[in-house]
Amino acid sequence: MIPCNTALLRKILVAFIRDEVRKVGIERVVIGLSGGVDSSLSAFLAAEALGAENVLGARMPYRASSRDSLDDAATVIAALGIRSVTVDITPQVDAYFERFPDADERRRGNKMARERMTILYDQSARWQALVLGTSNKTELLLGYGTLHGDMASALNPIGDLYKTQVWALAEALGVPDSVVHKQPSADLFQGQTDEDDLGFRYREVDELLYLMVDERYSTSELEAAGFGLEFIRSVSDMVRNSQFKRRLPIIAKVSQRTIDRDFRYARDWGR
Amino acid sequence: MIPCNTALLRKILVAFIRDEVRKVGIERVVIGLSGGVDSSLSAFLAAEALGAENVLGARMPYRASSRDSLDDAATVIAALGIRSVTVDITPQVDAYFERFPDADERRRGNKMARERMTILYDQSARWQALVLGTSNKTELLLGYGTLHGDMASALNPIGDLYKTQVWALAEALGVPDSVVHKQPSADLFQGQTDEDDLGFRYREVDELLYLMVDERYSTSELEAAGFGLEFIRSVSDMVRNSQFKRRLPIIAKVSQRTIDRDFRYARDWGR
Repeated sequence: MIPCNTALLRKILVAFIRDEVRKVGIERVVIGLSGGVDSSLSAFLAAEALGAENVLGARMPYRASSRDSLDDAATVIAALGIRSVTVDITPQVDAYFERFPDADERRRGNKMARERMTILYDQSARWQALVLGTSNKTELLLGYGTLHGDMASALNPIGDLYKTQVWALAEALGVPDSVVHKQPSADLFQGQTDEDDLGFRYREVDELLYLMVDERYSTSELEAAGFGLEFIRSVSDMVRNSQFKRRLPIIAKVSQRTIDRDFRYARDWGR
Repeated sequence: MIPCNTALLRKILVAFIRDEVRKVGIERVVIGLSGGVDSSLSAFLAAEALGAENVLGARMPYRASSRDSLDDAATVIAALGIRSVTVDITPQVDAYFERFPDADERRRGNKMARERMTILYDQSARWQALVLGTSNKTELLLGYGTLHGDMASALNPIGDLYKTQVWALAEALGVPDSVVHKQPSADLFQGQTDEDDLGFRYREVDELLYLMVDERYSTSELEAAGFGLEFIRSVSDMVRNSQFKRRLPIIAKVSQRTIDRDFRYARDWGR
């Protein structure tokens, strides 16, 4: 039901990366490679757009991360022939939580995601590169990601693709099967999966989100299309409650031209 | 020349904090206190808006930070009677740069600013609070700050105030003299000052930015007002070149409704 012309998507997204990176006078990108399908797809698109020698894949494991994730990221690096760097985040993360030993999994997971962001941005400075995003539209709409963590990037080629579209495009581009066909997971602990965390399947929620957001179906139209009211409500609550993650900080307006309000667009600022 | 009705600003900004925090069902804020005037002013406004017991001031020194900065932050905490936490960022930052010993001051400073952000967001989760911003309009326009570092917050009461307005309002609110009257500094090394870094004085650049941005003066009007062409050009370049820091990640558009493009506003998403 969600349109997915993979040949066209590939063409658009490769051109997007090439144009947006080069127009700021840069040739290279840095990508955090988790071993999952989203970051692998971003890496495949980037290598096609910029050449493998201009893509740096960063693997940033924590001590509890699965060995398979690290291996899957290595498979992608080898398949593309891109450059790579591996930075263990354990010392930094553990040094902080020694002070706050009672922190729960959620706080630890967010701190790790943000530590990885700080490393990607530092590597981008080290290598005169831009940080390429790896969040898909499903995650962004549901708020299933860390603000100023994995949601942070300079440009994001896959932020308008639902997870099911990511799968289809990754397959079309030749992302290794082991990566495309594994259970999506934030890899915070052994056996964790996104779908268990979320309480529903990507294939179901993608259809719902597509009709809600892209096709602007009302609740009654969604019910008529076969979705349960409880599912509709819980997903629309997730979208609404995560709106703050898709926005810039709210600035108190006290002047005629406030940043991100009246003073916002590039075209707004001539020479 | 820049309008500055401190009584009115105080009223607006205190109400802004109270409304924006409470409307999301929260009572508290966390603020990173550097000992400088910007974060001290945010803390004074927050304590007035929410009560001192609902404000947490976080001091996050690095080993090279000046002792005076830490003491000035303590003075603010004591003057307001707010809660406080002190977290040394040295172990986390040094653990990372052991891998990259040739990193320059700029990379180190950005990593520190981002480490502090991760701590503020973690403390906000620990304490059910929002992260209050401390970037002023001068810094935001010039791009004199770290993206996903000190520029990150849930809401920012002082982001529409030029530095000179921050000084005036801080004085009016009774922020301690030692804080208001010291040389602004990012405190990355001994003796560093913002004005040396930037190459001009806040009082001069604020007047220029106000006429450029708020009053929409053209270059020739700015010259007629007495500003040198080289100064005008270098400041307008700084504003233009830092535009990316005031924006969300750029998402490749491939659908009818793309996040931050067609799907952006809270009012856009009814129940």
